[in-house]
Amino acid sequence: MKTKVMITAALAIAMGAGVTFAGSHADPAIQGAIKARQGQMQLYAHNLGILGAMAKGEVAYDAAAASAAANNLKAVANLDAMTLWPQGSDMDSVEGTRAKAEIWTTFPAVVENATAMATAANAMADAAGKDLASLQAAMGPVGGACGSCHKAFRGK
Amino acid sequence: MKTKVMITAALAIAMGAGVTFAGSHADPAIQGAIKARQGQMQLYAHNLGILGAMAKGEVAYDAAAASAAANNLKAVANLDAMTLWPQGSDMDSVEGTRAKAEIWTTFPAVVENATAMATAANAMADAAGKDLASLQAAMGPVGGACGSCHKAFRGK
Repeated sequence: MKTKVMITAALAIAMGAGVTFAGSHADPAIQGAIKARQGQMQLYAHNLGILGAMAKGEVAYDAAAASAAANNLKAVANLDAMTLWPQGSDMDSVEGTRAKAEIWTTFPAVVENATAMATAANAMADAAGKDLASLQAAMGPVGGACGSCHKAFRGK
Repeated sequence: MKTKVMITAALAIAMGAGVTFAGSHADPAIQGAIKARQGQMQLYAHNLGILGAMAKGEVAYDAAAASAAANNLKAVANLDAMTLWPQGSDMDSVEGTRAKAEIWTTFPAVVENATAMATAANAMADAAGKDLASLQAAMGPVGGACGSCHKAFRGK
C-alpha cells in the first residue's frame, strides 16, 4: 500500500539516521519541526471535532461539511512525516513537546500507529459524505489510532 | 479549476454566514480554529524551509526530499479552509491571532490569495522533484503568494 510504504520509509529514515536538512541539530530547526507536527495535530483535532460533533448528534449531519472535514483529515494524515520527527526532538531533550523518546527507539510500533491513522483517515474520507451511520462507523478506527499512539508515545 | 471553486465556496460560506459547527461562537471553537489555521501555517513554514534551503544552495538538492516537502506543501495548501476562519476570529475580536478583520470584508481578494497559494503549491509539487532549477523557478510564486496575503491580511 502506497501510504504504508511512504510512511515506513519516511520514519525509518527520520528515526534511524536523523534528518539531513539544514541545521537539523540546531534549536530553530528542532523547534520548527515540533511546531509543524503540533500543527498537524491541531489540524487533526479541528477536523475530528467537526466529525465528532456530527457523530454524537451535537450538530446536524451535513454531508458536504463532513466530507470536507474528512478529506482534510485524510490529507493531513497522509503528509510525509519524515522531517517532522528529527532526532533530538523528544521531551527528554527539549522543551515544548510531549513526544516520548520511545518514538525513536520503538520500531516498527510507531510506524504501525502512523499507518493505522492514515488507513482510518482514508476510510473516513470514503465514508463521511455518504450518511451519518457511515461516518459514525468510521469514527472508531480514527479515535483508536489517535489514542493508541498517544497512549504509547505521548508524555504527560 | 477544482481548487479555486472549492476555496471560493468555502471562504464565501465562512465569511458570509459564519461557520455552523457546534459552539462556533464560543471561545473554545474560535480558539480551536485559530490553532488549526496556525498549524497550517507552521506546516507551510516547515516544508517551505526545506525547499528554500535547497533553492538557496544551503543544502544539497535531493529530489526525493524536495518532492516530499513539495507534496506536503500541496496537500496543506489544498485543505478546505472553510472552518478555519470563523466570524469573530480576527485580531480585533480575540487574543492570539494576527488575522486582520479585513479578511472577512475584503472579498474576493482574500480568496484570490488562497487560490494563488494553492496554484503555486501545485506547481511546486510538479517541479520540485525534477531538478534544482525547476524547484528554484517554482519558489517565486510560492513566496509571492505567502507575502501577498501576509502583507494584506496579517497584522503586526
